Amino acid sequence: MPKFWFAESDPFAPINYRYKVNKRLFSKKSPYQHVKVFEHDFFGRILTIDDVVQLTERDEFFYHEMLAHVPLHMHPAPKKALIIGGGDGGTLREVLRHPTIEKAVLIDIDALVIETSKRFFPQVAVGFKSPKATVLNMDGAKYMRETSERFDVVLIDSTDPVGPAKTLSTQDFFKTAASILTPNGLFAMQTESLHYHMAFINQVQAYLGKVFPSLGLYAAPLATYAGNYWSFSIASKAKVKSWNPVRSSVPKTRIYCEEVHRNAFVPQKVRDCFTDIGSGPYRRKP
Amino acid sequence: MPKFWFAESDPFAPINYRYKVNKRLFSKKSPYQHVKVFEHDFFGRILTIDDVVQLTERDEFFYHEMLAHVPLHMHPAPKKALIIGGGDGGTLREVLRHPTIEKAVLIDIDALVIETSKRFFPQVAVGFKSPKATVLNMDGAKYMRETSERFDVVLIDSTDPVGPAKTLSTQDFFKTAASILTPNGLFAMQTESLHYHMAFINQVQAYLGKVFPSLGLYAAPLATYAGNYWSFSIASKAKVKSWNPVRSSVPKTRIYCEEVHRNAFVPQKVRDCFTDIGSGPYRRKP
Repeated sequence: MPKFWFAESDPFAPINYRYKVNKRLFSKKSPYQHVKVFEHDFFGRILTIDDVVQLTERDEFFYHEMLAHVPLHMHPAPKKALIIGGGDGGTLREVLRHPTIEKAVLIDIDALVIETSKRFFPQVAVGFKSPKATVLNMDGAKYMRETSERFDVVLIDSTDPVGPAKTLSTQDFFKTAASILTPNGLFAMQTESLHYHMAFINQVQAYLGKVFPSLGLYAAPLATYAGNYWSFSIASKAKVKSWNPVRSSVPKTRIYCEEVHRNAFVPQKVRDCFTDIGSGPYRRKP
Repeated sequence: MPKFWFAESDPFAPINYRYKVNKRLFSKKSPYQHVKVFEHDFFGRILTIDDVVQLTERDEFFYHEMLAHVPLHMHPAPKKALIIGGGDGGTLREVLRHPTIEKAVLIDIDALVIETSKRFFPQVAVGFKSPKATVLNMDGAKYMRETSERFDVVLIDSTDPVGPAKTLSTQDFFKTAASILTPNGLFAMQTESLHYHMAFINQVQAYLGKVFPSLGLYAAPLATYAGNYWSFSIASKAKVKSWNPVRSSVPKTRIYCEEVHRNAFVPQKVRDCFTDIGSGPYRRKP
């Protein structure tokens, strides 16, 4: 089978990953972004948006489980969940593993991502079939401002904070998120790489700290996002004493478990170290 | 300044990283390998061996601290340490932070790596100046078979297990390592990526388990090694009850601390997950 290199073109990372792919299975532009699917021996199918890898069949579970299950296990009985972004459906799939969930609303601005995932990643998109799932294609920030629904968990599963996802990391957006959470609701959001984006992480954390009484930072070492030490910011509308899970793991997770949850929270020394290094060019110390 | 792409050529990874570098500062072949140094805005200087990144100025401390300090903090008062490989000097630098260390022996087969590090990475190579350091350029396995010295800690800081480093992951090699350890000595070794090399990790762990009574696996999310969720196998000549550190952190570590040490040990569920996925091509489940 002929092979060729797909090299990422990621304006938000100081490194690009390249993959020797067998073929391109799909390529289409929406009004928002360019969606492609490649086939790779090791990773299986790869979904890219604007030439940045969003998921691979092989390792997608790691990101989706960590984004969904850490906040969901901080709530004793979550009934309603909102996902902003996440058009591939992986986070939705994980949310629906919680038997208490009655309704999961997913708002992705781009219908093309959802269609592509249903067609090429049926095991990721499986949750779209659920009668508990409600899907709308619109601006997530607008939905949140206008909805009268209240949620136990709000998850931000966005692309990098450039392009369509830029409005999803402002202080106004976090205020709106807090306003649609139930009194002990949880908020979680992917916040990029500790290695590369500590300035962005600290900015998001500062904004969240003005809106929520409890705030945490956890991370997971993903294979296919540049900078791999991937961070998630979590916040709680009620004050929490610790970020340890409040109930047993739901079944059928592949990597999430109580030990993974506890170990994922980033020690202060690590945060300080990456804050000290910064996110700009390397400066040699004398 | 003109920029060009340096793309890794890594036969041991299913992905290559590429870096937009400012210039190549150095390129020379030894009898063993091809050593190069590049300059990069974000990562600072980058050392490559056979076109695989070995370290960058920006993030090298993460790997070196995790390889050295986890085993060294499992020993109440380490006096003698042996490093096999590690010609850049980063692991040696970290070993020498422990005030109990009286002698640190570093065996790297390739003098060119040491010379290059001294010239281009003086802050990494700083330990070579120490009167406690003894450096020999010879085959590490041969040194270990022939030495009459006994060590409290043996650290294997090797390149990927292809080429010169291939002999450093055999059962015979581990038997020799055990034979030169003091009765409560510790052994640690970098064992590649959990995402990509779980078959290799499991093989090393099986070999180590036949030689040592206690065996652990810890990991760190590095920025610039392909597969980033980087594993370290640790083994103790005396049976240990837990892998928690036995004393306080030495000063001046940048990222290592007791919490990082404890969180780094890989939960069984994670090991099982990556073992189940395997290290071969992706197989879609029905």
